[in-house]
Amino acid sequence: MDDLKPWLKATQKQVDSALGRFLPRESAAPKTIHKAMRYSIFAGGKRLRPILTLAAAEACGGELENALAPACATEIMHTYSLVHDDLPCMDDDDLRRGRPTSHKVFGEGMAVLTGDALLTQVFIVIAQTPETKRYTVKDYLEEIAVTGGSKKLIGGQVLDLEGEGKELSKRELVKIHENKTAALLTCSVRLGAMTANATPAKLDALTTFGYNLGLAFQVIDDILDVTQTTEMLGKTAGKDEAVDKSTYPAILGLEASRKEAARLTKKALKSLEVFGKKGQRLEQIARYLLEREY
Amino acid sequence: MDDLKPWLKATQKQVDSALGRFLPRESAAPKTIHKAMRYSIFAGGKRLRPILTLAAAEACGGELENALAPACATEIMHTYSLVHDDLPCMDDDDLRRGRPTSHKVFGEGMAVLTGDALLTQVFIVIAQTPETKRYTVKDYLEEIAVTGGSKKLIGGQVLDLEGEGKELSKRELVKIHENKTAALLTCSVRLGAMTANATPAKLDALTTFGYNLGLAFQVIDDILDVTQTTEMLGKTAGKDEAVDKSTYPAILGLEASRKEAARLTKKALKSLEVFGKKGQRLEQIARYLLEREY
Repeated sequence: MDDLKPWLKATQKQVDSALGRFLPRESAAPKTIHKAMRYSIFAGGKRLRPILTLAAAEACGGELENALAPACATEIMHTYSLVHDDLPCMDDDDLRRGRPTSHKVFGEGMAVLTGDALLTQVFIVIAQTPETKRYTVKDYLEEIAVTGGSKKLIGGQVLDLEGEGKELSKRELVKIHENKTAALLTCSVRLGAMTANATPAKLDALTTFGYNLGLAFQVIDDILDVTQTTEMLGKTAGKDEAVDKSTYPAILGLEASRKEAARLTKKALKSLEVFGKKGQRLEQIARYLLEREY
Repeated sequence: MDDLKPWLKATQKQVDSALGRFLPRESAAPKTIHKAMRYSIFAGGKRLRPILTLAAAEACGGELENALAPACATEIMHTYSLVHDDLPCMDDDDLRRGRPTSHKVFGEGMAVLTGDALLTQVFIVIAQTPETKRYTVKDYLEEIAVTGGSKKLIGGQVLDLEGEGKELSKRELVKIHENKTAALLTCSVRLGAMTANATPAKLDALTTFGYNLGLAFQVIDDILDVTQTTEMLGKTAGKDEAVDKSTYPAILGLEASRKEAARLTKKALKSLEVFGKKGQRLEQIARYLLEREY
């Protein structure tokens, strides 16, 4: 298998190009909303979720082309959640991916509508996913709608909002990140696998993979918030502590948090055994995420 | 055909009961968001959109039972848009359906999340619509997602937001209401018809019906905002003028607005001819809406 870095770069480019096709043109009326949707989507994200979707499709022997729609859908869902989370009435963030946040550029009302429009676009895009013998658009729809819903993605944000200023237990913190981060990463790999007509056993393995990778990813994110600068992060550093948010380093300490991330990554990697050599790309991605500067 | 009023009452009851089933229980975690979702849904709306869905299914010879999921989906979509429109950064409304608005009760951040959760729930619910020979979940999904998207429902709200404080032409005003109101009413009848396996010709007739009824409905809404009290409306009266919003009465005058509503209703009724006697319920509803106190 080729090196990860060039593959990542090439795949990000493919994802960006597909995102361009799956979003309304900036010239479509009303222009403001389409400009704002594209502003947040093309702000230089890592495209982790679509990359996982494509790598999972590959691991299950599918065509990358067939996984582009759900890959973009997961990225659009992630972006909508950031636009709304950054609002003054939520996390009140001025900076995201190194640029002013949506409400700073377009105003609060427009940022609410931009998030809404992106969320709705998720479903316009998911409807375009090719069906397989085992999976129909109904299956893709249920997968992503339940993941984005009040019991998972939004539920996690609710717990996060309610937990601010309180001292959370590790268990409570895990609950937030299961919903906020791990659920969408799990959905990303599952959708990719579904477009490859994966067996239920492989879907199960990817559920375990996504869950553990998602938690590991969040632990590392929390560590980076403590150890990196705003410039390195592209978002306000030290923010968690400033707003008195419970984080892994705050609860466990830095060293134990690093160990926790390694433990979770190991569990994620173990779940890939069923894919044999075909799982190498997912394995490379998991290792790469763990070895981010922190 | 029996009288409209008892049918409306019985149907509203059925819709409310279905909405109760299609929303997460209040006891499901996190409780706050599910309480807030139900607070806005069960605030005593007229259930116009689901009623249109069910009446359209009936007009096409379908089973009411099969149309309950999309009926609820349209009502949930309508409610999400109200929750977000009422936010301080949008229309800043304190009162809706006679009760304090969501952000007044649950706070702004939670109201944003509640709208998001309702919007996502639309798609969880639409996935549960029974398929027919002609129409699959993919068709239902595309219908409602495109209607809710940046070029229709949200696009209309963008134009509305951008038009505040400006003097709009009649044409610009119609554009807003085509998107904000008529699109979702059209989608409501079309989805009902689809669950009844309606022919494309019947879908076309209902598209004309929904469009004209939607515009008529909005003209009447604008008139009521001028002529009725806050108590009668259940939302702040005189609000349009107070925020310098362009309305039909402001542009055309009251008398011409009334004539416009009658003209549009007539066009809507004409489109029902293809349904013969089966279209009577839709006709009754259209007449009833026109004859609201105004």
